[in-house]
Amino acid sequence: MPDPVVSGSPSSTERVEEGRVLEPKFNAEGLITCVATDAGTGDLLMVAHMNAEALRRTIVTGEAWYYSRSRKSLWRKGESSGYGQRVVEMRIDCDQDAVWIKVEQAGAGACHTGRRSCFYRAVPIGQSGAGSIALEFRDGEKTFDPRVVYGKAGDFSPGS
Amino acid sequence: MPDPVVSGSPSSTERVEEGRVLEPKFNAEGLITCVATDAGTGDLLMVAHMNAEALRRTIVTGEAWYYSRSRKSLWRKGESSGYGQRVVEMRIDCDQDAVWIKVEQAGAGACHTGRRSCFYRAVPIGQSGAGSIALEFRDGEKTFDPRVVYGKAGDFSPGS
Repeated sequence: MPDPVVSGSPSSTERVEEGRVLEPKFNAEGLITCVATDAGTGDLLMVAHMNAEALRRTIVTGEAWYYSRSRKSLWRKGESSGYGQRVVEMRIDCDQDAVWIKVEQAGAGACHTGRRSCFYRAVPIGQSGAGSIALEFRDGEKTFDPRVVYGKAGDFSPGS
Repeated sequence: MPDPVVSGSPSSTERVEEGRVLEPKFNAEGLITCVATDAGTGDLLMVAHMNAEALRRTIVTGEAWYYSRSRKSLWRKGESSGYGQRVVEMRIDCDQDAVWIKVEQAGAGACHTGRRSCFYRAVPIGQSGAGSIALEFRDGEKTFDPRVVYGKAGDFSPGS
């Protein structure tokens, strides 16, 4: 018996949005956006990208894998730093072009700059929008020294 | 006196990552990824895109503006549905290619499918990765009827 959700020739949109089958929509570069939040605190840790293989490995292993656009290669989070991410839950959005992973972040942080989260600067709201806009550091204290943790190998900017 | 953060000819990377000036890095399409979370619950509501003008308007007005890739136009969240997003805080990530907004979501939800969040389906972790992967609905109950709220005008998938 066919899956009732996909029977009856639903439109592609209906199938993608209301269906029960994973049909990730990769962009022209073969990537999907991934948002990682801290499973404990709910804080946003990082935004990065996955290609099909990174997504597959994440689903199979429960460890976060990404695709580095700058290095053009698969990248297991923590492979340089030891600060991996264990995936507690993965969700996909309505049009299946973004995934959300709730993770247990190992070690001192997720950001290659040495901070827990990549989002350590606020953009003040209500400015004129003209001229340069000043950022305000928030939770900007470094929790580890990236030169020590990554050494020369370097771990790359998650969004890169 | 020059801003101490940008004096001394820091490298571009250091300026972008440690600086106090907003220098958003738009992609080849002129877009930056935006993650919107519920300021009250912390839940991830949606992932969408902003172009320079959408980002500017969001900063100036405190209301979330996006860029619709499918419509190729600016889009104020809620302009069709009435379910706008007031920005409580905006942050930018290390390499300034993603923004995070914490919002007060008006009305019954953020998702054009009629749900509070676009992330209403889970991808089970630990599967073989071969064959099709079944999704599990989580918080998938519709909180409003999109046919009523959007009417024929339609509001578009936030990721599109």
